Amino acid sequence: MDLLKRKIETEGRVLSNQVLKVDTFLNHQIDPELMVEIGKEFAQRFKDDKITKVLTIESSGIAPGLMAALELHVPVVFARKRKSLTMVNDLLTASVHSFTKNETNEISVSQKFIEPTDNVLIIDDFLANGQAALGLAEIVEKSGANTAGIGIVIEKSFQDGGQLLRNKGFKVESLAQIASLENGKATFLDEAEVVL
Amino acid sequence: MDLLKRKIETEGRVLSNQVLKVDTFLNHQIDPELMVEIGKEFAQRFKDDKITKVLTIESSGIAPGLMAALELHVPVVFARKRKSLTMVNDLLTASVHSFTKNETNEISVSQKFIEPTDNVLIIDDFLANGQAALGLAEIVEKSGANTAGIGIVIEKSFQDGGQLLRNKGFKVESLAQIASLENGKATFLDEAEVVL
Repeated sequence: MDLLKRKIETEGRVLSNQVLKVDTFLNHQIDPELMVEIGKEFAQRFKDDKITKVLTIESSGIAPGLMAALELHVPVVFARKRKSLTMVNDLLTASVHSFTKNETNEISVSQKFIEPTDNVLIIDDFLANGQAALGLAEIVEKSGANTAGIGIVIEKSFQDGGQLLRNKGFKVESLAQIASLENGKATFLDEAEVVL
Repeated sequence: MDLLKRKIETEGRVLSNQVLKVDTFLNHQIDPELMVEIGKEFAQRFKDDKITKVLTIESSGIAPGLMAALELHVPVVFARKRKSLTMVNDLLTASVHSFTKNETNEISVSQKFIEPTDNVLIIDDFLANGQAALGLAEIVEKSGANTAGIGIVIEKSFQDGGQLLRNKGFKVESLAQIASLENGKATFLDEAEVVL
């Protein structure tokens, strides 16, 4: 998705070989028009997958998840990272380790929002080690529903999450795939391949 | 906003005289089309207030905040409730007590995303005691910017937050104002007034 790649090039900040900061448009400040285009792109890539529900995770997955759901004309559900006092019964849960935050969270979704007949599209902002997506897929499996696909805004292809998910047979669509963050620069997978 | 009130009547669950659960369309599962209408309504109510930025708070403020920002053609920023490892410098912070969750969080926004010239619209899903909105307004004040208004999806008018904010001179626009949750039923302020 060229619009997104150009945004990453102009506004993303490479903090290390591992960390790309995109807080000007994706996960702290959000560019609403870009999110609309991201939603349209996800809808296009999963248009034949009979999606009945989008599942994402708070907080940074909500904006792209909501826009994908809007375009697909289905509801979106976001998993919570901590239980709230008013959400205690019939929870589907999974453990997710975040390497960025160096902590393990129990993520949870009310069982009533994912039905066994659902065809679920999982959406998240980043894919690195794949732990969040795997946790969401685990929740879908526990509900008896089907994970029809996984849509990622930015995949760090030099980490193993993408391969892990694809090896498990999931259809993974990433709107920008980053081959490397070396030398303070984001290099995209398709553009790196052209050079090779 | 009638569409919202009817949604509350048909899908909201009154758990006690204090607690209204709207997790089927607002703060766990989200109805994207309803959010579009909520965004349009906020944009209409603040169209003359020269808004340059929407400020909300994770996680449940993100969907209505994003849609309001989309309609107003401005960016949206969401305050975080915990610091992330990659967001450490130049933070604007405020302490916010949540009565629902019975905990105090430090909320924070990167200083660079609210400039002194900004005219900020604060958006949140619920207004009860007003603590979250006050914390967001405190952050805006610390940045040197102006709080042009506060937009709330559901105001529990029987709690004191709305009065508190209006007494401080803020323009507060709530799309549904609930006068009472007694007898297991949500009664709206304007409809309660008609009865009186």
